[in-house]
Amino acid sequence: MSTYQAFEVTGSRQFAWTTRELVPPRAGHVRIRVESCGVCHSDVLAVEGLRPDPSRPVVPGHEVVGTIDAVGEGVRAWQVGERVGVGFLAGHCGECDPCRRGDFVNCADQEQTGTTVDGGYAEVLYARSNALARIPEGISSAEAAPLLCAGLTSLSALRQLDSRPGSLVAVQGIGGLGHLAVQYAARLGHRVVAIARGAEKASLAASLGADDYIDSAAEHPGEALARLGGADGIVATAASGSSMTPLLTGLAPRGRMIVVGVGTDPISVSTPDLVLSTRTITGSLTGTPIENEDNLAFSVRHGVLPLIERMPLAEAPKAYERMMSGEARFRVVLDAVQA
Amino acid sequence: MSTYQAFEVTGSRQFAWTTRELVPPRAGHVRIRVESCGVCHSDVLAVEGLRPDPSRPVVPGHEVVGTIDAVGEGVRAWQVGERVGVGFLAGHCGECDPCRRGDFVNCADQEQTGTTVDGGYAEVLYARSNALARIPEGISSAEAAPLLCAGLTSLSALRQLDSRPGSLVAVQGIGGLGHLAVQYAARLGHRVVAIARGAEKASLAASLGADDYIDSAAEHPGEALARLGGADGIVATAASGSSMTPLLTGLAPRGRMIVVGVGTDPISVSTPDLVLSTRTITGSLTGTPIENEDNLAFSVRHGVLPLIERMPLAEAPKAYERMMSGEARFRVVLDAVQA
Amino acid sequence: MSTYQAFEVTGSRQFAWTTRELVPPRAGHVRIRVESCGVCHSDVLAVEGLRPDPSRPVVPGHEVVGTIDAVGEGVRAWQVGERVGVGFLAGHCGECDPCRRGDFVNCADQEQTGTTVDGGYAEVLYARSNALARIPEGISSAEAAPLLCAGLTSLSALRQLDSRPGSLVAVQGIGGLGHLAVQYAARLGHRVVAIARGAEKASLAASLGADDYIDSAAEHPGEALARLGGADGIVATAASGSSMTPLLTGLAPRGRMIVVGVGTDPISVSTPDLVLSTRTITGSLTGTPIENEDNLAFSVRHGVLPLIERMPLAEAPKAYERMMSGEARFRVVLDAVQA
Amino acid sequence: MSTYQAFEVTGSRQFAWTTRELVPPRAGHVRIRVESCGVCHSDVLAVEGLRPDPSRPVVPGHEVVGTIDAVGEGVRAWQVGERVGVGFLAGHCGECDPCRRGDFVNCADQEQTGTTVDGGYAEVLYARSNALARIPEGISSAEAAPLLCAGLTSLSALRQLDSRPGSLVAVQGIGGLGHLAVQYAARLGHRVVAIARGAEKASLAASLGADDYIDSAAEHPGEALARLGGADGIVATAASGSSMTPLLTGLAPRGRMIVVGVGTDPISVSTPDLVLSTRTITGSLTGTPIENEDNLAFSVRHGVLPLIERMPLAEAPKAYERMMSGEARFRVVLDAVQA
Repeated sequence: MSTYQAFEVTGSRQFAWTTRELVPPRAGHVRIRVESCGVCHSDVLAVEGLRPDPSRPVVPGHEVVGTIDAVGEGVRAWQVGERVGVGFLAGHCGECDPCRRGDFVNCADQEQTGTTVDGGYAEVLYARSNALARIPEGISSAEAAPLLCAGLTSLSALRQLDSRPGSLVAVQGIGGLGHLAVQYAARLGHRVVAIARGAEKASLAASLGADDYIDSAAEHPGEALARLGGADGIVATAASGSSMTPLLTGLAPRGRMIVVGVGTDPISVSTPDLVLSTRTITGSLTGTPIENEDNLAFSVRHGVLPLIERMPLAEAPKAYERMMSGEARFRVVLDAVQA
Repeated sequence: MSTYQAFEVTGSRQFAWTTRELVPPRAGHVRIRVESCGVCHSDVLAVEGLRPDPSRPVVPGHEVVGTIDAVGEGVRAWQVGERVGVGFLAGHCGECDPCRRGDFVNCADQEQTGTTVDGGYAEVLYARSNALARIPEGISSAEAAPLLCAGLTSLSALRQLDSRPGSLVAVQGIGGLGHLAVQYAARLGHRVVAIARGAEKASLAASLGADDYIDSAAEHPGEALARLGGADGIVATAASGSSMTPLLTGLAPRGRMIVVGVGTDPISVSTPDLVLSTRTITGSLTGTPIENEDNLAFSVRHGVLPLIERMPLAEAPKAYERMMSGEARFRVVLDAVQA
Repeated sequence: MSTYQAFEVTGSRQFAWTTRELVPPRAGHVRIRVESCGVCHSDVLAVEGLRPDPSRPVVPGHEVVGTIDAVGEGVRAWQVGERVGVGFLAGHCGECDPCRRGDFVNCADQEQTGTTVDGGYAEVLYARSNALARIPEGISSAEAAPLLCAGLTSLSALRQLDSRPGSLVAVQGIGGLGHLAVQYAARLGHRVVAIARGAEKASLAASLGADDYIDSAAEHPGEALARLGGADGIVATAASGSSMTPLLTGLAPRGRMIVVGVGTDPISVSTPDLVLSTRTITGSLTGTPIENEDNLAFSVRHGVLPLIERMPLAEAPKAYERMMSGEARFRVVLDAVQA
Repeated sequence: MSTYQAFEVTGSRQFAWTTRELVPPRAGHVRIRVESCGVCHSDVLAVEGLRPDPSRPVVPGHEVVGTIDAVGEGVRAWQVGERVGVGFLAGHCGECDPCRRGDFVNCADQEQTGTTVDGGYAEVLYARSNALARIPEGISSAEAAPLLCAGLTSLSALRQLDSRPGSLVAVQGIGGLGHLAVQYAARLGHRVVAIARGAEKASLAASLGADDYIDSAAEHPGEALARLGGADGIVATAASGSSMTPLLTGLAPRGRMIVVGVGTDPISVSTPDLVLSTRTITGSLTGTPIENEDNLAFSVRHGVLPLIERMPLAEAPKAYERMMSGEARFRVVLDAVQA
């Protein structure tokens, strides 16, 4: 095989199925035969042209699992044949101040997989070696893929909460992230409340491990949380700041809302509600490759799996549309079957 | 002396100079001969009738220093003759869940000095013993008084920041709280930026220990902070949420804005600005009596003093108006001279 | 009923089965009809006369569950009929510096149940109201009792560890504390290694949730842990400091050994082993009543139960001997059956 | 200049003054014209042959300040002409698990300056670029040098303590590290107690900022600390574990002893003293290059300077002997004067 197929997107929603030359990886990089790639809401950045230079084509996809088939110069820690994953952050620079402090997530000079560099809607991915996570045995590539972004984001957010056993943790939004966050929160020993619009997700939430369910279309979710005693933590996953506004009064004193969803509308924060109960709102952003390894090991041990729908790579544009429609239950994963 | 004088306020701004009977303190309480009482912006709650039952008269004032002259039944830890202070929180219940967790600031059954129970615009104050802080030698009662609320609030907020030496800390608002927060931040080893409207406070800020000054009327304070490298912490003291909105982008990655000012307008929080740089916004509320003792000891050791204007107790209504006008530099303290 | 039966111990091992008058509880106290009382190794303090005044009789026992049948003056938060538990700490003073900081465990003026004040080897216990924990539904009094000291100590220790999912946590000693610590560590999402002398506890450890087992009689436990990658945390429960000495090199960098076992021989700490891998050794001591409530709720939700042997109260001396012999599997609980 | 002079040491104390060829720096490295190099007690590892391969010559010295005069391939963040410093850690690998977690101090594949790779007893040093710290204006190279190891170690240790203002912090040992730790602790707002053997260092300690002094030859230092109320933190710098044993009872409840001194004799830790007051002992090891930059900025701002004696590079063996004799006050710094 000397070429591979990839979906490129140019401008807004202009998908093209292209053939590319197979070349050796650059220094510090590896070449990966893609097996699976999750479709994430953040793919909107690539597909809708919300990136620095939308006229330049890019391959979307940042929940990628595959096998290394070539390593570039200077790569000592990774071998051909290893099954690895790549998430949203495409490798840190190591030289900026956040990197020198060990805060790789906030690297000031970092590419983003499937947004500023090519991602996993393809048969082959080139990736920087410090972006790689090892995939353990005991989980399929298709199920591992969504854990690399949706899973990592959920668990990183939960780790910022006080570890008090049995504390009340709410998850707002039962979608790609939220259906994993509920599972993780329950496995970490919290009492879990799921919050979503409509009554239909209540039984699903219970099956994922939620103890309570709040239909935010039917009642004020902050008041409902307060009636349950107040949440020690909330993981807010909706792509809408205004949907988070009413959650603040649902936090117990010293409670923390960890925001992982990004939207165009702001959260409106009442200063009396913030100050008089000493509440906190924090933004949390994905995590590091080794945290992905921690996370995958935890997921395998505790049986946390994403609910996925699989589609062939060749149907990537359709998969993207299905994901954006909100109908997917809860993650579409592309299979890259190779000859 | 069998009576004492006190200012009562009823409804909105209805001050009355009254004579009260001197009685023994109740069980668990002490009686204090007031020497000094600071006038705080939060006195607005009492004076403007913004309290549960404004038709019931109350004595305002919650930065009170004086000497115990009687102790009630069951009070073992305090003696007649000790110089003590009382701040905003009037003693915790010890039985609610926050109290059982040691989080007395969030006590669910707590009175507030000068708002729900009588405060220090008076010659005598009755106080619950677990609300008392010892006043050390080396500081006058008049200078100690504002430290009990404005000082404690400032230092408690600063203590929530990472203690990295030399980190950049901004103080928004150079008033009753802010002029103390600048001094504390500098003494704790931070690089300090003062933020206020107008150029006239720049030299004052420098004399208090600030390294930089941002005139928020002349430039966007978040952008100005970002140009300085981004703040690791911001203590936001203005009584306006909307004035805090532009500060968010001035935080460095992992930076924290500690909100102590309370206003009627909300902070508008952009989720991309929050999430993509993993920033945090926290509400912070005063502190405990023993933290006041820590604080006073620190202030004496490091020469942190409030800038005050003194007025006799009999001019309390005038003192209140001066404080509210924003013209006081920076705290008015009432002297209770007794025969 | 106007009298009740209690075991008193005087001097060393002088048990006496006595009849006492039933009196109303003092102010701030409640009277409890005892249902169950666990026998803990720390009962040695009372029974062997290792307490301040061994000539004064005391009733041992500090894992006590029963029902309130009278409340004293000033007790507002507790009612007759509630099922409650009392652990080792017999109520905090509220006035010392640690109490004023909310650190009730380190109260400088605190009685200890069954050691300095009468405990639960009796039909009736008088207890200070701030020492009480509510017992939830879903657990028997006999199974709840050991959770009040052995369970609390285990879980408080584990809470001091980093909450990284899947981190490696070792439990040294599979006895009254350790058999609970293994269960809690597994439920909290850690990878768990049990360490004990001899091969016979390996299968028990596995059934409690341990992933690995180290026989410290057959191999150096620190070296064995290092071969597993190094422990992020160790909970050391043995009543012997010297048995903890070889564990230090089994800690990963930044790893923490939480010591809950107390012995007469010291831990010998090599400074190169401590400094060059930035390791930590911490002492941890029981917890507060509300932490017992958190803990019980967690235990019920996650099915953590002590393994117990039940004996009637009248056989308390025999139960004590069995517990001390190390043959109990793993906690003896006294049943106080009342007419 | 095509050659430079360096002191090599082989085996034990075999110094040789050698001439070396000047070559370009390797990829990822820079070449530094040395200006100053501090002599640290840890130089004993190189000079006494306590290193992996003592038969191979090495240049001692790990408190090195100089100016970059050449940069190797791939070095983007550093330029010729910058004044930089290099401490004990000679650059992290970036690939091991601790590095992937951002814990560079515990890098599993790290060289040590002046021990496993050549150090600063020389006119020229080759250093890995990720080991470099920028030296700010406002401090001489000779005074900056000891801050790169003795200073960093002291301040990193102090940063592990609770930042409570005015808390009691003890520094054991007033030598190369301790005389800096006292200064830092005082500047960070702590109440500082210096502990050393003999009365003669009392006035020096006071001049550095200590509030109290304990002569550990004249009284039990733990008991003396307990009489002062108990230390919230102790920084233990002596090269002797047994000298730290009596300090443990000087810690207040929840107090922490941060160990930075390394000796051949262990600390003997009583488990009752550890557990019953929930005390902690932690090893702390130097810090990262960016922490050195934080630290230097803090030192310049707050006027923290080492007390040094300067000697020419050519007298390095004599300087080493003086440092080891304990007579230096408190750091000998070598001046590398170049033609």
